[in-house]
Amino acid sequence: MDIADATWVKGTSTYDISRSVGVVETRVSKLSLPSEGFKTESGEFLPEVEVCYETYGTLALDGRNAILITTPLTANAHVAGFHGSFENRGSKGWWDDMVGPGKTVDTNRWFVVCASMLGGCSGTTGPISLNPSTGVAWGYDFPDVTIGDMVEVQRLLLDQLGVVSLFAVIGGSMGGMQALEWSLRHPCRVERCVCVAAAPSLSAQALAFDILGRNAILNDKEWAQGKYLPGVGPAEGLSLARKIAHITYLSAEGMAGKFGRRQRENDDPERFHTAFEVEKYLDHQGTKFVQRFDANAYLFITQAMDGFDLAGSYGQTDELDYLTMADLADESSRSSAKQALAKIRLQEAFARSQCQFLVVALSSDWLFPASESWRVAEVLVQLGKSVSFCELSSPHGHDGFLLEVDQLDRVLSAFLSTPEGTLSPSQRREPPSPSGIETSQDKAIIASMIRPGSRVLDIGCGEGALLDHLVHTRGCTGEGLDIDLSAVIGTLARGLSVLQGDAVQALSRLPDGAWDHVVLNQTLQAVERPPEVLREILRVGREAIVSFPNFAVWKCRLEILLSGRMPKTRDLPFEWYETPNLHPFTLKDFRTYCGENGIEILEIHELSDSWLGKLLVGLGFRNLGADRAIVRIARKKYAS
Amino acid sequence: MDIADATWVKGTSTYDISRSVGVVETRVSKLSLPSEGFKTESGEFLPEVEVCYETYGTLALDGRNAILITTPLTANAHVAGFHGSFENRGSKGWWDDMVGPGKTVDTNRWFVVCASMLGGCSGTTGPISLNPSTGVAWGYDFPDVTIGDMVEVQRLLLDQLGVVSLFAVIGGSMGGMQALEWSLRHPCRVERCVCVAAAPSLSAQALAFDILGRNAILNDKEWAQGKYLPGVGPAEGLSLARKIAHITYLSAEGMAGKFGRRQRENDDPERFHTAFEVEKYLDHQGTKFVQRFDANAYLFITQAMDGFDLAGSYGQTDELDYLTMADLADESSRSSAKQALAKIRLQEAFARSQCQFLVVALSSDWLFPASESWRVAEVLVQLGKSVSFCELSSPHGHDGFLLEVDQLDRVLSAFLSTPEGTLSPSQRREPPSPSGIETSQDKAIIASMIRPGSRVLDIGCGEGALLDHLVHTRGCTGEGLDIDLSAVIGTLARGLSVLQGDAVQALSRLPDGAWDHVVLNQTLQAVERPPEVLREILRVGREAIVSFPNFAVWKCRLEILLSGRMPKTRDLPFEWYETPNLHPFTLKDFRTYCGENGIEILEIHELSDSWLGKLLVGLGFRNLGADRAIVRIARKKYAS
Repeated sequence: MDIADATWVKGTSTYDISRSVGVVETRVSKLSLPSEGFKTESGEFLPEVEVCYETYGTLALDGRNAILITTPLTANAHVAGFHGSFENRGSKGWWDDMVGPGKTVDTNRWFVVCASMLGGCSGTTGPISLNPSTGVAWGYDFPDVTIGDMVEVQRLLLDQLGVVSLFAVIGGSMGGMQALEWSLRHPCRVERCVCVAAAPSLSAQALAFDILGRNAILNDKEWAQGKYLPGVGPAEGLSLARKIAHITYLSAEGMAGKFGRRQRENDDPERFHTAFEVEKYLDHQGTKFVQRFDANAYLFITQAMDGFDLAGSYGQTDELDYLTMADLADESSRSSAKQALAKIRLQEAFARSQCQFLVVALSSDWLFPASESWRVAEVLVQLGKSVSFCELSSPHGHDGFLLEVDQLDRVLSAFLSTPEGTLSPSQRREPPSPSGIETSQDKAIIASMIRPGSRVLDIGCGEGALLDHLVHTRGCTGEGLDIDLSAVIGTLARGLSVLQGDAVQALSRLPDGAWDHVVLNQTLQAVERPPEVLREILRVGREAIVSFPNFAVWKCRLEILLSGRMPKTRDLPFEWYETPNLHPFTLKDFRTYCGENGIEILEIHELSDSWLGKLLVGLGFRNLGADRAIVRIARKKYAS
Repeated sequence: MDIADATWVKGTSTYDISRSVGVVETRVSKLSLPSEGFKTESGEFLPEVEVCYETYGTLALDGRNAILITTPLTANAHVAGFHGSFENRGSKGWWDDMVGPGKTVDTNRWFVVCASMLGGCSGTTGPISLNPSTGVAWGYDFPDVTIGDMVEVQRLLLDQLGVVSLFAVIGGSMGGMQALEWSLRHPCRVERCVCVAAAPSLSAQALAFDILGRNAILNDKEWAQGKYLPGVGPAEGLSLARKIAHITYLSAEGMAGKFGRRQRENDDPERFHTAFEVEKYLDHQGTKFVQRFDANAYLFITQAMDGFDLAGSYGQTDELDYLTMADLADESSRSSAKQALAKIRLQEAFARSQCQFLVVALSSDWLFPASESWRVAEVLVQLGKSVSFCELSSPHGHDGFLLEVDQLDRVLSAFLSTPEGTLSPSQRREPPSPSGIETSQDKAIIASMIRPGSRVLDIGCGEGALLDHLVHTRGCTGEGLDIDLSAVIGTLARGLSVLQGDAVQALSRLPDGAWDHVVLNQTLQAVERPPEVLREILRVGREAIVSFPNFAVWKCRLEILLSGRMPKTRDLPFEWYETPNLHPFTLKDFRTYCGENGIEILEIHELSDSWLGKLLVGLGFRNLGADRAIVRIARKKYAS
């Protein structure tokens, strides 16, 4: 999460000035407040609040084309362009790759705003600001602030700027927390919320690291109960706090590659310091940070992050009431009741949201692991709200949210684009389905099985063609599910919601009964445990539509009989050793399985592409004639 | 890694006194040293060294029945039994579950020794000991010590005790590092080496956490350049160091379960301290640690751990020579050359070892992840040495090495048992093979294909019956590979080497050409990517023996033809939806694949269990008659 580093890694050697917002200035605005001042969530008052912010692009007359970028822990308002002059490369904005004319956050189209956070030390009011009632810096006496307070300050700034509603609020890390807070605090003013590498609250492990970072500062005698003079302060403690945090921003894999056990050459470290490169690097990070950050500010803003808990702030169910209802015979049932309560409250919190969400996680992030980000997507799915979820593959740990510019760019660009999106036709091709076929006939049959206006989950959705069809011709809503990033981006670019994940693993994390229909097109024979997948799709959906190739079609039977080799047909076109069809089965096998496992076949279509097959099906020899089948199924009423 | 906690978690309510070593005492021995004293690896001298140690059991007359237990970072010599009296439960030894009469480390059989470590503060000479030349505690002036020095002190103690050679040296965490050091420093004196949750050196991430722990101590003004008085000292710094380390001993999953975001009730924390349970817990850990540990000792011993690097200490290839040979055009080739060098040196290091190794990792340990432990197993396999590797499933992170007593007990007990081991016949049953069959006929055929005295890898070895047969009737050596812990334990109990892991993933981590023969019995049809597995087995072995069911046997052909259902036979006994045979194929398919992919079939046996099948095979209709085949294959010479 070191902004300067991230910029440096990307380099500026081929910098395209035509796509830059150019030379920019950070501005300061004093908020118009009621006479008592700004009331924090902790109930204290700030008599005045100044906000440091930058804007790029032009606000539309209706005040509705704004994008707010919320900042991570230690970043400031300077998102894009340069301070002073182009030559001043060191001053490039921390997300310049994403923001500019023609870039993903296109300043020709949107009015982009970013403000430094309340309680920090980057210009917006914080502990280093003067306390007007004493004439000296607030320091220790600054009131406790929350993520909610930070968002309130941003809201007041936007009011002053004439921004009526936000086309999108976008934030990574602690900025992602602010983006989520926006979506709940001002649901009517946010159209899209992009939350990257964040979570609805910190995990116990992440809390622990923050706690030790603050310990390091408070331990430092120079901290002097927060009453140190400007320019001095607990440099060693702040440096150590930063170093602790810095490890959590990298991945073990990344550190092994970057440092390993490499030693600095010609170096004679002091006693109990090592010659390992990694120590030098951490020292450098600590020292750099002390030069640009204030220790009290670090205490206030990390505390705000630790306290952030959407379930706690916006959930309504009372803990005591709930726990009284639950059976609390022992510690373990008490603990699982508390977990269930946390989920209920998170759902209550997001019930108020009205925007489209994009939640992005990074595969090697262990500070905000994908499972923590997923909690947001899960409750939104459960609530039937619009949400897309991506897990970007990255070796960079949490820092990936600044380093995986290309992937993030593609995802964000698809999400922000209108449905008649920006992907070229060549990018829009469908990936081959496991069986190699997916005819428009099949799609028409599947569509005919789905009630207009129902909610659909399309597993293995590719670039969303079927879902698009259902949404536009039958008024359906719903989500796609695919593991492939290009498929996810293609689906996003159609203006559809999509969850990135492996069919089987993702299914297990989806809530009960969230969909009317689950479509599993040409996939059942390709999963490792078909019974588990059948169980899961009939758990998350009231009905499922399953299509599969029939291994007992006459062509297969003849081929294995006569050639003694594993059959290959149009519907089963792969060699035995590379077929994704791990569990081929026959129409009869499927009927038997359903019969024995409490699954009702509501509707079935046996399809053939040959005249002989059609004839056989027509004569009633369905298992011999059908190349494939499309079946609508549900749990039998008495079963389950 | 908090010893007291681990003991507490297991509880003592059903403590079996008959299996306890009883009330024990820690003894002190002054080492007999040359007149100049003990020379450390850093070249300094300790004029005298006292060692605190405990022993249980009786040393045999030949001095060869000893087991040395080496200690983790902050543990002491008190491994088993009680100090003072049985009632003094708090004083139970830190590995009492494992050590005692009739326990895994059986004190009726072995003479068990454990000594506190040099440089620590548990009685053995360290910075809190008196420096005889000044009459005050060594403190800062204590010489730098290494894991090698610690092992040397243990060796001198064993000499004095009359221990000639070690039946085993056993250690977890930093104790595992000492055990590895023993195996290389005194190869002739160690018969077995058990290394649990350790590695041949620390990773960059683990180094970083240690470095920050020392930073915390050095930052503390009370440290006073290490010259603090006894009884005082950098309590805050030491506490913080311990808290940082403590997070790395737990897993994120474990912390989420244990603390989550739970708040302490009726608690009003000081400013910038939170009410989260996890903060209270960490504070408690820090405070407890300060009461029992010395800050300088912590600096010395963590530094010893950080410096530990077997490749560096015992590797021979000179870095400069090697890097001069390699193409160092750019940073990335320089970096990969350095990685290759590290591997070569580790191999050179372990070339001197002569004992049997057991390397144990824990699934959720991220301080010493399984991949770091695996490095030891990998070089030993490459060197053709005897090594077994287990990865125990545990949610407890690194602390699992103290908490997973049951699993560790079973593994260790099998490894320490003689081949005519201790498992009861019921524990010794073979798990079913994927096809449900594995006749003695098949085994005899496989055995007949293997040259006497060759080295064999048996993939999916079960409890090692085939390997046992090969070792005892044909003088083979080699390893089994299985993912199932019971299978691993069964194989260990036969006195055989075994690697725990998934066939496909483990294969990719095994070295080129390490085996003469690789046996893949009834598994090829059950893996997700058969071509990859064929490629890998012919990479790690010069030849492979593959057995598989034939899907084109007459029974299958008839069944699919007539019943229209997926066939089930004795060799393919599963329902379509639960079969592990993801890629069924025919004899003819296999022949074709080999022909097209540069694989030579050296020998083939077509087997049938029916008279009709035998007749068909006899008449030359092999693909129609054979229920299954056993094939010996190799890469074609011109191919590769």
